[in-house]
Amino acid sequence: MRAVDLIMKKRDSGSLEGEEIDFLVQGFSRGEIPDYQMSALLMAIVLRGMNAQETARLTEAMIRSGDVLDLSGVPGPLVDKHSTGGVGDKISLILAPVAAACGIRVPMMSGRSLGHTGGTLDKLESIPGYRTDLSPERFRQGLSKIGFAMIGQSQRIVPADRRMYALRDVTGTVESVPLITASIMSKKFAEGAEALVFDVKCGSGAFMKNREQARELAESLVSTGRRLGRKVVAVITDMDQPLGRAVGNFIEVEESIDCLHGRGPADIVELTCRLVGWMLVLAGKAPSPADGQSQAARRLSDGTAWNLFLQNVEFQGGRTDCVLNPEKGPHAPIVRPLLASSSGTVNRIDAFQVGLASVVLGAGRSRKEDVVLPGVGIMIRKSTGEAVTESDELCLVKGESETQVQEALRVLARAWELAEREPQKRPMVLEEITQE
Amino acid sequence: MRAVDLIMKKRDSGSLEGEEIDFLVQGFSRGEIPDYQMSALLMAIVLRGMNAQETARLTEAMIRSGDVLDLSGVPGPLVDKHSTGGVGDKISLILAPVAAACGIRVPMMSGRSLGHTGGTLDKLESIPGYRTDLSPERFRQGLSKIGFAMIGQSQRIVPADRRMYALRDVTGTVESVPLITASIMSKKFAEGAEALVFDVKCGSGAFMKNREQARELAESLVSTGRRLGRKVVAVITDMDQPLGRAVGNFIEVEESIDCLHGRGPADIVELTCRLVGWMLVLAGKAPSPADGQSQAARRLSDGTAWNLFLQNVEFQGGRTDCVLNPEKGPHAPIVRPLLASSSGTVNRIDAFQVGLASVVLGAGRSRKEDVVLPGVGIMIRKSTGEAVTESDELCLVKGESETQVQEALRVLARAWELAEREPQKRPMVLEEITQE
Repeated sequence: MRAVDLIMKKRDSGSLEGEEIDFLVQGFSRGEIPDYQMSALLMAIVLRGMNAQETARLTEAMIRSGDVLDLSGVPGPLVDKHSTGGVGDKISLILAPVAAACGIRVPMMSGRSLGHTGGTLDKLESIPGYRTDLSPERFRQGLSKIGFAMIGQSQRIVPADRRMYALRDVTGTVESVPLITASIMSKKFAEGAEALVFDVKCGSGAFMKNREQARELAESLVSTGRRLGRKVVAVITDMDQPLGRAVGNFIEVEESIDCLHGRGPADIVELTCRLVGWMLVLAGKAPSPADGQSQAARRLSDGTAWNLFLQNVEFQGGRTDCVLNPEKGPHAPIVRPLLASSSGTVNRIDAFQVGLASVVLGAGRSRKEDVVLPGVGIMIRKSTGEAVTESDELCLVKGESETQVQEALRVLARAWELAEREPQKRPMVLEEITQE
Repeated sequence: MRAVDLIMKKRDSGSLEGEEIDFLVQGFSRGEIPDYQMSALLMAIVLRGMNAQETARLTEAMIRSGDVLDLSGVPGPLVDKHSTGGVGDKISLILAPVAAACGIRVPMMSGRSLGHTGGTLDKLESIPGYRTDLSPERFRQGLSKIGFAMIGQSQRIVPADRRMYALRDVTGTVESVPLITASIMSKKFAEGAEALVFDVKCGSGAFMKNREQARELAESLVSTGRRLGRKVVAVITDMDQPLGRAVGNFIEVEESIDCLHGRGPADIVELTCRLVGWMLVLAGKAPSPADGQSQAARRLSDGTAWNLFLQNVEFQGGRTDCVLNPEKGPHAPIVRPLLASSSGTVNRIDAFQVGLASVVLGAGRSRKEDVVLPGVGIMIRKSTGEAVTESDELCLVKGESETQVQEALRVLARAWELAEREPQKRPMVLEEITQE
């Protein structure tokens, strides 16, 4: 078998056989297939696509490229949630303790911020002392004892994806549903999850800008799950506007704490409980997502989830005093408001611009090697549907330097759309794709 | 400007601007754009195409990547011919002296055999002593004195094409009309030709297997020539069957010598004179290709071209005794016939199979590093339209080892198609594409 023949096969719209996909992934992992052949193949896949069978085999081959976490000693059901990334998306921080409070084990492996989207690991690590590099043994302990634990992807999990993603990033081959599917699914199953709920974000602040793209990815994730014999649900949710009111790192931890105390913004509470509802359905612990959603809401309001969150912070080395008294956490010194230049009603806040502004402040990364600042961020004061009078504060910007704050304010000025009338209410959950 | 953005632009069917193409070719030449980005771009070009403007700019950028031969001291008109490659294609060996005999200077830069197709340089170098690595000064002398000279591509001419072709070869990105056009045209214009006649081969023994592909390439070559302000004609010719009766290296030199003595097979004579006819039209030395063709035929039959061929062999260091008495040249020791297994009339000889058999014998290369044997080859005894009785010799195979000869005979057994009736005569010249 020669890589060049397989590249030509895909180039000419052929379907790759299982052994051919294994050959390519193994060869690339071992360094026998060079980057320049892989990038040509990736471009052919972007433009010619892959069918469901190829996508599932690619996922399996990538899982086999490295270690698979052994969670056999942890009592199940093991269910995880994965979001395709958005602005202000702190759902994982709230969802994991809520799901654990409902009797699910959540082996959560998260990513870091990149581009305009935030990363769960960066948010968690903004809690002083919090460690996400747990050993497998410690991860299992956390799962068994508290019901959830939060880690980053280790070097040994799906190394093929690590190398392939770095290549895709610089060769214009990120935008491909089969490649995205295999990348996400391989990592999630290698971490030991038995079932998965995907939050496929859709809108200006998401990777998938429109409904068709989001649906295509959601269906691919669900059907690949079916082929791999795993229960998967994909929920398409709105990411045209930031989630909640806080965008940053510790500022989002604070908002998560509010949520866990029953004081969270409605959109976050709704989405969290809906996703946990589906996790409970997949785990066989709820007859319907609506029933599961009610269970989740109860655990959120009765303090059980908050208690587990506190236990987790302590277990992973975080300073609990900083979550008990968030004013002790990291807070950037400079705080400036964005003032409204006219009056009206907030029609929309462009999530993409808000995400960019948060990167300007240093809450995210424009390059992988950038260091993330824990205490910077944006607090939205006037959200969609709210009335604004000229000179009102639309948001507060927290930054480490005046230059960055002023630059962020310029970016944010483009984010608020005011209208004369109250906007139509936009649903949070746009569509749900199941395996039935 | 970032390479990844330009890759994405082409991936999404965009047209690249002139400066963007320059940036890519220069960056790649200097090693600033790595192979893995270039191969992704090349695959995007294969699948998304390039318009005429992009193709012309790519050609220019590639010419500028290296030296351009200065032939300003050589009295014109400087016209070259280029063939896209075939089986038994020794046309250059005959055409160059015929064109020179008609008053044209032919600065011929040729290639080596690769895959099933032969290479003019390998054929010339089968003449003992013949050198194709002339210095620019010596090349100019040959052109001025004899009217033609034959060299290989130097390292300094179009280095971008050299690197790019090596990459295309292993990444499934050879098959692209704009990329083939830029590769061919850049080399031909960097060698100093003012006008060009292309012999675009079409059929089983050619790179372009069908008429549509051949026409697409021919039209691209002609229109790119127009955009670069050069006169270009493309002649689409039959390569479903081998040209002439000899396939190999010195065996093709012998057949060329026969042609130059007026004893050549009709297909070779017709094609050579037609191509020279067009060269004379482009040079302003003939009012029509038919008139040019007659001039060429006269120079072929009156011995002028043969005389120039002899002078060239001497000038380039070849042993003239070997061309005056070809039995003194290299001849492989083992000669075996392929016998007909039934009777009938030869309907077709598959050029691709004959080409493969010649590679088996060592006349060509399956890998670039292979060494070519000068004295091996195939002599066709029963050509298309000729009657065959069972056990007649269809061809003679000359080889250095019995194993290779037997293997070549097995391949050749698949090449001859016998039929009950005489086949329809196939025209040599299928179509002519001009700039008018």
